[in-house]
Amino acid sequence: MMEKGISSVEVLPSKSSQVTAVKVVVKEPETKQTQRGKRVGFVLVHAGAGYHSESKAKEYKHVCKRACQKAIEKLQAGALATDAVTAALIELEDSPFTNAGMGSNLNLLGEIECDASIMDGKSLNFGAVGALSGIKNPVSVANRLLCEGQKGKLSAGRIPPWKTCLSSALCCVLFLFSSLEYAVGEGFSLAAFKRNKRKLELAEKVETDLIQLKKRRQSNEKENDSGTLDTVGAVVVDQEGNVAAAVSSGGLALKHPGRVGQAALYGCGCWAENTGAHTPYSTAVSTSGCGEHLVRTILARECSCALQTEDAHQALLETMQNKFIGSPFLANEDGVLGGVIVLRSCRCSAEPELSQEKPTLLVEFLWSHTTESMCVGYMSAQDGKAKTHISRLPPGAVAGQSVAIEGGVCRLESPES
Amino acid sequence: MMEKGISSVEVLPSKSSQVTAVKVVVKEPETKQTQRGKRVGFVLVHAGAGYHSESKAKEYKHVCKRACQKAIEKLQAGALATDAVTAALIELEDSPFTNAGMGSNLNLLGEIECDASIMDGKSLNFGAVGALSGIKNPVSVANRLLCEGQKGKLSAGRIPPWKTCLSSALCCVLFLFSSLEYAVGEGFSLAAFKRNKRKLELAEKVETDLIQLKKRRQSNEKENDSGTLDTVGAVVVDQEGNVAAAVSSGGLALKHPGRVGQAALYGCGCWAENTGAHTPYSTAVSTSGCGEHLVRTILARECSCALQTEDAHQALLETMQNKFIGSPFLANEDGVLGGVIVLRSCRCSAEPELSQEKPTLLVEFLWSHTTESMCVGYMSAQDGKAKTHISRLPPGAVAGQSVAIEGGVCRLESPES
Repeated sequence: MMEKGISSVEVLPSKSSQVTAVKVVVKEPETKQTQRGKRVGFVLVHAGAGYHSESKAKEYKHVCKRACQKAIEKLQAGALATDAVTAALIELEDSPFTNAGMGSNLNLLGEIECDASIMDGKSLNFGAVGALSGIKNPVSVANRLLCEGQKGKLSAGRIPPWKTCLSSALCCVLFLFSSLEYAVGEGFSLAAFKRNKRKLELAEKVETDLIQLKKRRQSNEKENDSGTLDTVGAVVVDQEGNVAAAVSSGGLALKHPGRVGQAALYGCGCWAENTGAHTPYSTAVSTSGCGEHLVRTILARECSCALQTEDAHQALLETMQNKFIGSPFLANEDGVLGGVIVLRSCRCSAEPELSQEKPTLLVEFLWSHTTESMCVGYMSAQDGKAKTHISRLPPGAVAGQSVAIEGGVCRLESPES
Repeated sequence: MMEKGISSVEVLPSKSSQVTAVKVVVKEPETKQTQRGKRVGFVLVHAGAGYHSESKAKEYKHVCKRACQKAIEKLQAGALATDAVTAALIELEDSPFTNAGMGSNLNLLGEIECDASIMDGKSLNFGAVGALSGIKNPVSVANRLLCEGQKGKLSAGRIPPWKTCLSSALCCVLFLFSSLEYAVGEGFSLAAFKRNKRKLELAEKVETDLIQLKKRRQSNEKENDSGTLDTVGAVVVDQEGNVAAAVSSGGLALKHPGRVGQAALYGCGCWAENTGAHTPYSTAVSTSGCGEHLVRTILARECSCALQTEDAHQALLETMQNKFIGSPFLANEDGVLGGVIVLRSCRCSAEPELSQEKPTLLVEFLWSHTTESMCVGYMSAQDGKAKTHISRLPPGAVAGQSVAIEGGVCRLESPES
């Protein structure tokens, strides 16, 4: 097994002064021994596009690192891409620093309502939950929906309760009615109810919060944005070259109950699509940022489509500039706020100097954002630990009007079986 | 004012034996006098793609006719395209024969939960409700969301409760919590609760229904499909050339509570987009059929994009064949069931023989379906009454695998002001 390390960062010139295009360049591995028999795979995660203060940078990076490790552990154990991506999301949801799962913003009633979705590039199945209360890890339910989606239909042609294709379906109300029963029946942890209790007790404080939030926004808009934009997500490619993507969000602070954002909506929060007859690359995308902007531009799917052209970096940059910031659907917005992580892979012949024809998986990964910053982490199954990074707009660039884009390449060789 | 009548139907040859391409051809008006000072506009409605039995054909046509008239009345009174399309939808929702509003299927708890959405081609705003209970006309709420969407943000950066860009946002849970309060506060009719009571009393019959439905499906699949597929919708172009589209659905019979289908989801149930820098045509689309199939293919938006090429008929046919029936996202489905109505318009110079340069609006309208049948109606502001039609797959064609496509052209000349 040979895997290339990602070891240097090079700043590229850019046509637009408002674009910072930093390319992480691959270097040849130096002394790394080819490892046989170990599974390969790659994960890229994010802890939100928004504003990550220097004071909390360490925590954001740490949770990204742990999320990468969880996904890689799964891949090394032979798990599917969807299970690996779920493992990463659970770790991200469990952090009190992210706006997902445990750390979610409270709505106007002082309650937590989460959105999450997951897509499997192989089956193209999709599972989603919207405005979900009382479940510790929304992504687990979305993944469950996705799995159930493979199992066919119930009697009388009814859609099974957990069938994803149920339609890319939001089961929000189902959960309001019966999340407790379901949690018990299906083995989900009820501990969430207790753990969330502290937050629910804050309900009475909501009116006060609203006033405080308003004041804070006036005095320090950045800090507040940080609270509203840090959805989490991950993209994975496994041993077989299958891709998966997932996203999870607690939604806007003080949102109205029932408000569902991009993380629950097909094509908007995540996208994964294995290579096919008309798609030379397998692609996986996860988005973060202002729900309205991500939904109106159906950004995850838009990025996936664009990544079928040869130059992934250029394709993503143009998408962020023309289909996101420049979208006619957002013409009346002051600024367009969002970020994406993308991964694409294709099988290619091994390098000439390697005499044996091993199947090689070329993985290109990128992140791009129009927000002040975006925290990412990435790791391949052969790395000892994850790399993490807080990407920031360059000084002078205007959030909502400028694009930052960075990324790297990784070549994975399947182990000899 | 001159307006061309649509008066003959011509069967076109088709490359595929599985495609029936019927073109409604425009004929010159014979003696119709140019009417001055009257407003122009056009509406196309559908009462679902599914199976419309001969025995109920009259009712389906009748409701389509009334819906067209309601929209045209609005247009003649100078209403916006969105208000005209809403008026058509209200009429369709109020019919007991359609699966929307009043006539909606019951879910597993014996309750009615509706999805509806509306899109304004001018502002590109979108309003949607999902799994909405206790409101007589879901489309009215979606339209309200759309209108509120224009009004900017609340204090503290919160999204206003009814802001559409709230995002293409499903307000399902909001309605479960507070539909009664909202209905009172916002002036929506509460009569729906009484009128729905009869249906709600059927709740206890659900288990029996399930068994009966199963038996019926075994004995007569078509009749059952009829019950599950008849979402309603409409597309409109107004005096100014603005387009709007809307869709409303009661969802699958015996669905799980909270199940949200294409009618609530951005890009899937309806789409409207005025002409712009990169879009020579204004387009409006409304879909019907199997929610899963329509969502996975994001069919409304897909049709809208395709309609920017020159030949609308060919573009729609290819979309239905390649992006719907042939979609890789539906590769594992036995058949792909759906239907669309589309309208596109562009301003063009008046015909050479007319010496005066009046602004002329060329409106092309089409419907296409892979289901057994689709019931449509259409009317221009200058018509005395609407035309209605039940389009059927030709004998021998297989539902889910064949495409029927029909349509026509209408030229609208703005009155002299």
